[in-house]
Amino acid sequence: MPTSTIVSELHELLERDQVVTDDAALDAYSHDDAEWAEYVRPLAVVRARGTDDVASVVAYAAAHSIRIVPRGAGSGLSGGANAVVDSIVLSLEEMTRIIEINTAERYVVTQAGVINDDLRSEVARHGLWYPPDPASYRISTIGGNVATNAGGICCVKYGVTGDYVLGMTVVLADGSVVKLGRATAKGVAGYNIAALMVGSEGTLGIVTEVTLRLLPLEGREERAVIGYFPSLRSAGEAVALVSRAGIIPSALELVDRTCLRAVDEWQGLGLPEDVDTLLLAKVDERGAAGDELADEIARLFAQAGGTSVERAGDVDEVERLFLARRLAYPALERLGPVLTEDICVPRAAVPEMLARIQATAADHDVVIANIAHAGDGNLHPLIIAPVGDAAAKERAKAAFDRIVADCLDLGGTVTGEHGVGLLKLAGVERELGPRVVQLHRAIKDALDPQGILNPGKAFPAARSR
Amino acid sequence: MPTSTIVSELHELLERDQVVTDDAALDAYSHDDAEWAEYVRPLAVVRARGTDDVASVVAYAAAHSIRIVPRGAGSGLSGGANAVVDSIVLSLEEMTRIIEINTAERYVVTQAGVINDDLRSEVARHGLWYPPDPASYRISTIGGNVATNAGGICCVKYGVTGDYVLGMTVVLADGSVVKLGRATAKGVAGYNIAALMVGSEGTLGIVTEVTLRLLPLEGREERAVIGYFPSLRSAGEAVALVSRAGIIPSALELVDRTCLRAVDEWQGLGLPEDVDTLLLAKVDERGAAGDELADEIARLFAQAGGTSVERAGDVDEVERLFLARRLAYPALERLGPVLTEDICVPRAAVPEMLARIQATAADHDVVIANIAHAGDGNLHPLIIAPVGDAAAKERAKAAFDRIVADCLDLGGTVTGEHGVGLLKLAGVERELGPRVVQLHRAIKDALDPQGILNPGKAFPAARSR
Repeated sequence: MPTSTIVSELHELLERDQVVTDDAALDAYSHDDAEWAEYVRPLAVVRARGTDDVASVVAYAAAHSIRIVPRGAGSGLSGGANAVVDSIVLSLEEMTRIIEINTAERYVVTQAGVINDDLRSEVARHGLWYPPDPASYRISTIGGNVATNAGGICCVKYGVTGDYVLGMTVVLADGSVVKLGRATAKGVAGYNIAALMVGSEGTLGIVTEVTLRLLPLEGREERAVIGYFPSLRSAGEAVALVSRAGIIPSALELVDRTCLRAVDEWQGLGLPEDVDTLLLAKVDERGAAGDELADEIARLFAQAGGTSVERAGDVDEVERLFLARRLAYPALERLGPVLTEDICVPRAAVPEMLARIQATAADHDVVIANIAHAGDGNLHPLIIAPVGDAAAKERAKAAFDRIVADCLDLGGTVTGEHGVGLLKLAGVERELGPRVVQLHRAIKDALDPQGILNPGKAFPAARSR
Repeated sequence: MPTSTIVSELHELLERDQVVTDDAALDAYSHDDAEWAEYVRPLAVVRARGTDDVASVVAYAAAHSIRIVPRGAGSGLSGGANAVVDSIVLSLEEMTRIIEINTAERYVVTQAGVINDDLRSEVARHGLWYPPDPASYRISTIGGNVATNAGGICCVKYGVTGDYVLGMTVVLADGSVVKLGRATAKGVAGYNIAALMVGSEGTLGIVTEVTLRLLPLEGREERAVIGYFPSLRSAGEAVALVSRAGIIPSALELVDRTCLRAVDEWQGLGLPEDVDTLLLAKVDERGAAGDELADEIARLFAQAGGTSVERAGDVDEVERLFLARRLAYPALERLGPVLTEDICVPRAAVPEMLARIQATAADHDVVIANIAHAGDGNLHPLIIAPVGDAAAKERAKAAFDRIVADCLDLGGTVTGEHGVGLLKLAGVERELGPRVVQLHRAIKDALDPQGILNPGKAFPAARSR
């Protein structure tokens, strides 16, 4: 069908300004924040304002076998929202309504396009806390968080997005609308299809509304411990020591000197210049219990070779350092295209994996900056290639592949929280093996027989043939 | 194929004593603890000793389109392990090996037949804690817990079985063996098929080994609060008050007078005789924080009309009361066949639901005893019918259906933790609706195209046609 026909038929389904086809918009919506992955210009961009809009667009697409690429804020780092050939990009960013906050049951029902930080602020006004805090929390949507099962900083103690999803409204591949999951504290009625939808990157259905479990806002007392380390590996040793001691901090983040410098040059935060690697820990137990844990972490940091280990009394200092952690990614992007790794290894393997990353950087002659949710073993080596240097880009890709291989060698997974998208298809194929990939194919075919929902993402469909 | 041929071919696959066909065994393995649900004698019982045994039996069954009913300890309460026509019952109860306990990463890898309590004891010796504690923890297997996504007493704070499942080994419907999930703290490689397997009651695959996340054993200080209430409804009000106050106890259990008397008559625990309803709460925060929470709960219990509310200093007293809670079900079974409900309603609806249950008992002239994981809104009204009284049995069934209807009316789910099995098929059909039931069918057909794995369980397959 000609694109002009599709566009005019979409116009009949929606308000005029919901269908966008100008070149600038088509380019802007052609990819997420994973520009290293392939993408093309979509046929059209549609901005849904409610579940009904999503349902009518998907029903239309199903009737004509047109592909749909669903999208939140486009802050993804694996290419999950990159447009594919002959596709409509269906943006949920205008679905920003919080539908219900239930303080007695401690849940919120929200449209998918609500920004994570906006949701957190709104439920906080009702004395409630939504823990999952991806570094992108100021720009990423809840729907995108659910579609990728996003992690974050506090998930070392409080779990990831999926741990808070109770239920959802989903538009299926035929345009029908279903509710999955529940609003009660427990429930096992039928298969846990809601859990299957979480992290499926819009390939099995489009999540339009989510019911999220919340915690009470009060009851925690945060204390921070800051450790400066002479090397990446010694910081890794500190992480392994904390884990072996059975301590579960509420944050345990690593930032290396490349990241610290990039953030400082960009934002002028006045970060220390002589540090190699920074570890940021938080504990949030109340009273003496919290003090004891913080002291124990400080002791273990020092034991691993940390210098200037300090229990942070200065809240501003702690927030500045955590801000440096959150800004590391955009700061590095200013230096050149960033190829983002997202491996997760056993915590005990963190020092060895960090050492291997350094060896990879040296052997392949690439700059690799490191940020990590170290307490989870979730490392983000960020490979930077100067713009326009084709040889450097090839070296970066080789380094990326070697890191994936090393991670699997150490018993890890190739994606801890960013999702498979396009960037991790090869790694996931290796990690899962052919029979499990077949299972993915069978489930995909069962739920999306025409293959119109975000085709080619989330699992290696074609490659396994 | 004649049964004798099947049996002799099974004998070739396994050791002689692994295939059981005597009448007593066939009867014993023909149903779980849900005798109200239908069951028949199976063709044979096979006792697997490892994943290979399961795989070879399933491969054989797949080749000949023979149905398999997988089974752990048979302690299920919904009929999930009841034998169906022309089926082989495949018991995993002899798969009792704990394969690995990893203290640094805090996980355990275990065969499916390990008893919950044995697993808890073994990991405790390594300073680790496996929280999920179904009332059946002394007799039920981890595999059964995973197959039903079993809940328990501490899950009001610590979550259910599925919240601890990191990965698993599964035998698929064609007899192939796959590993799903991971051993790392985080991971989003591909669809969360492991989460789909949890609670699928052996209808999508047979879980033979499980990797379970553990918590540190130390760091909690348990305090109990006991409240005696003049009525079921006033105890329900106390539950709603605790929930509204934003308190998350580590246990909040309700036991009514019918249960207390049945336990006392059976075990002579010296329980109080003049009590109508008992609420048992625990908190496990350390230090002053724990004291404050316990005091607050005691205050709220009193506010709701609780008498003799006490902060329990006497550990033996507390354990005796919790034992009464755990023994309630077998104690009631001595009085007659028990039809077990397992509804879960919003916490705020607990008083209203309890009142409706009492009205149902009166209107249908049946005895209904109540135990509840009240803090989760997960109620277990237990309907008792005298043996051999056909009219009473019919009244019991009518009461069961009315409770299900009331639960849905109050926004609840028809099964909080026991699973659908056979008993809840009609309720689940009503709860999920036809389109979601179709989704179940599609997933089932994708993973088990011949329909040989525990057919007719977990979702209303035939009824939706």
